[in-house]
Amino acid sequence: MNLFIAHIQQDKALISDAEAHHLQKVLRKKIGDQVLVTDGKGQIYLGKIFSIENKLVVVSPLKAYDYQQKRPYHIEVAVAPTKQIDRTEFFLEKAIEIGLDAMHPMITFHSERRKLNHERLIRVGLAAMKQSLKAELTHINEVIPFNDLIVKYKNFDGQKLIAHCYDDIAKTPLKEVLQLNEKYLFLIGPEGDFSKEEIEKATKSGFSSITLGNQRMRTETAALACVCGVHWFHQ
Amino acid sequence: MNLFIAHIQQDKALISDAEAHHLQKVLRKKIGDQVLVTDGKGQIYLGKIFSIENKLVVVSPLKAYDYQQKRPYHIEVAVAPTKQIDRTEFFLEKAIEIGLDAMHPMITFHSERRKLNHERLIRVGLAAMKQSLKAELTHINEVIPFNDLIVKYKNFDGQKLIAHCYDDIAKTPLKEVLQLNEKYLFLIGPEGDFSKEEIEKATKSGFSSITLGNQRMRTETAALACVCGVHWFHQ
Repeated sequence: MNLFIAHIQQDKALISDAEAHHLQKVLRKKIGDQVLVTDGKGQIYLGKIFSIENKLVVVSPLKAYDYQQKRPYHIEVAVAPTKQIDRTEFFLEKAIEIGLDAMHPMITFHSERRKLNHERLIRVGLAAMKQSLKAELTHINEVIPFNDLIVKYKNFDGQKLIAHCYDDIAKTPLKEVLQLNEKYLFLIGPEGDFSKEEIEKATKSGFSSITLGNQRMRTETAALACVCGVHWFHQ
Repeated sequence: MNLFIAHIQQDKALISDAEAHHLQKVLRKKIGDQVLVTDGKGQIYLGKIFSIENKLVVVSPLKAYDYQQKRPYHIEVAVAPTKQIDRTEFFLEKAIEIGLDAMHPMITFHSERRKLNHERLIRVGLAAMKQSLKAELTHINEVIPFNDLIVKYKNFDGQKLIAHCYDDIAKTPLKEVLQLNEKYLFLIGPEGDFSKEEIEKATKSGFSSITLGNQRMRTETAALACVCGVHWFHQ
């Protein structure tokens, strides 16, 4: 069944704009059809289409739909966008399906790509969220320079982890450093890795250096491996 | 440094055909340049280009290059190719980076895609293997119908696992069923899942039903989550 993002008002849901267009024109839903709706704050509702007007669809009455349990942990990933943007998009889609709370596209010293179509990334994320019936929106943030991110998350109330490949900087395997049922913020560098200065800055700001094993992984693969790892370690 | 697939003869490596072309024409390597070579059987060598003739490059002398340790476990994934083939290709690339020994594209009852460009998939796999400096070739098999695969792997000497979403068929979480340092064969179904008859056939042939958690994942995401899971559980 299709999931739509809606504004929830007591016993009814209002679907508008692009979502309403998709429902009417692409999926050709009709009055009386059952749909799933969410406001992206953790709850999905099952309801019937009550009315369809131009760009406004009302779904009512609503019934709570318990599809997935809320996770007791929270994952944010700051990742340098890849040169070929489809790799970043693929990461985002897969990470949302597996479970991701926020993504921060991050510009680093070695970043080849320094611009990003934020709207497009949000569309990819929304589609993934709907396809995998997620009741909570993944926050897809605007591009942020590495230094600003370090400052912004100085007081992040969880584990701050930076993955890199330098052999001469002490690193701990993710499995050993991970404390369960926490909040996590991962930093994943670009092709060419973080600069040593960046790692030093992150370390001073409370990030722990981690290793994901001895495989040589692309940026988006490393980011995905972190998200997967957190989920598997919680099972 | 670039890795090339080669024929290894004592202290020299012969690079031919497409690999030689790539070395000469695309990467413009010259006599005396250092390169990595492998025969795909588990060892990478570092060597110098000794001669370049039309479509034949000789690398000599060779020195063993210990980049990655051999894994004490073995992963094969049989997966229904996705309608949009780039999703399957992306799975293959990521799985090879993380570590995959064999992929079996498999046609099931609900498969939308029943044909596959095998040569193209091999190219994707080879590129991923070289990019991530893998010393062992991932075997990318030809498309096989579900029933034939079940017969072919009747006596597979490892754990046989089938992932599906039926709530009324008992399933065990991957983490609980997985025995370490084993061989694993995963079956991952298409959009629309395996048919119940297929699951019954697999079960009779010794496959255990597993669940990957309560997330709703696409085919290629589920396949990748299995590969990631095996690696994380071994760390």
